[in-house]
Amino acid sequence: MLTESLPRIRILQTPTSVAWVEFAIANWQTVLLDHSHCERKAAGVALNLMFRYPSSTRLIEQLTAIAQEELDHFAQVNRLLAQRDIPLAPLNAPPYGAALGKAVRRQEPERMLDSLLVAALIEARSHERLGLLAQHCPEPELAQFWGSLVKSEARHYGIYWVLAEQYTDRETVQTRLQALASLESDLLSTLHPEPRMHG
Amino acid sequence: MLTESLPRIRILQTPTSVAWVEFAIANWQTVLLDHSHCERKAAGVALNLMFRYPSSTRLIEQLTAIAQEELDHFAQVNRLLAQRDIPLAPLNAPPYGAALGKAVRRQEPERMLDSLLVAALIEARSHERLGLLAQHCPEPELAQFWGSLVKSEARHYGIYWVLAEQYTDRETVQTRLQALASLESDLLSTLHPEPRMHG
Repeated sequence: MLTESLPRIRILQTPTSVAWVEFAIANWQTVLLDHSHCERKAAGVALNLMFRYPSSTRLIEQLTAIAQEELDHFAQVNRLLAQRDIPLAPLNAPPYGAALGKAVRRQEPERMLDSLLVAALIEARSHERLGLLAQHCPEPELAQFWGSLVKSEARHYGIYWVLAEQYTDRETVQTRLQALASLESDLLSTLHPEPRMHG
Repeated sequence: MLTESLPRIRILQTPTSVAWVEFAIANWQTVLLDHSHCERKAAGVALNLMFRYPSSTRLIEQLTAIAQEELDHFAQVNRLLAQRDIPLAPLNAPPYGAALGKAVRRQEPERMLDSLLVAALIEARSHERLGLLAQHCPEPELAQFWGSLVKSEARHYGIYWVLAEQYTDRETVQTRLQALASLESDLLSTLHPEPRMHG
């Protein structure tokens, strides 16, 4: 049983439970495979936004860099899986991503704002949870790997947040961020029955 | 008027016309902008296949590298556009990509085969045309840039082709490749009225 208090990430409303950490550590193979899917999906999120807003120079520039980094991490996770003889395989996604996607409003400019904030929240949650895995994972090489990703995810959530503030006034961003962060925390309030990064 | 004979790429049925080269060189700004879209789309093609076949280890490994390289080229083109004060802007796509996409059969395993061969043909055509731009572009920095991309595109079409042969027997690949290559050449037999990489 973990007893230390878990660190707090500013953008997230509720920190991850000790129960998630214990469940993830006990099922690290599945969580590693799930994280491979997460990295590919994160690259997909960045690229989709680049397709949707092809003329937004700053967004294009920043998201190109994010997509490149996610693909780099994806390749790294896949190498670790191969070294451990864990085959690439599909995994059922927890409801988290789809539920956040449903909260994105369909009209512009709300659609862009919501998409950027949802991406920021997902990256922030990854940042928090990777930090927890780095801290508590008993396998040193894997702990080091989780740790190596922590900073990138923090940078990514910062970039999505700053982009949101570049295209929308700060007060509107703040109000919407609170609503979405509340939903994000609610979605994780019950532990998903399968071990997932965002379960 | 260009008089030299244009180089032949093995996988393509018909070489690009002199008329395309002259039109592209005369409209190099639009072609440069169009190429930015092409690189983003090429990354999208690789990533979509990675989403569709998440357990195909070899495909995942190779296409991750291709997607990374396309994003790197995308960033390079965008820097060249910025240096020349050409703003990022959407461009109408020529019918080429959609027509090739329509030729992809919907059932597996034909869908995977066709997707890989269509990607190979598009990369091969890019390889051919980038070589022509490198050879005939009067602006030295741009000519050098086009030249720097030529080898990557050749590598990419080779990878897609080899992947096709990894998942399907060589004779089936060859028969289907001929049919798709014939379509690909037909689609370019009339010069598109707007200057495009695949017009």
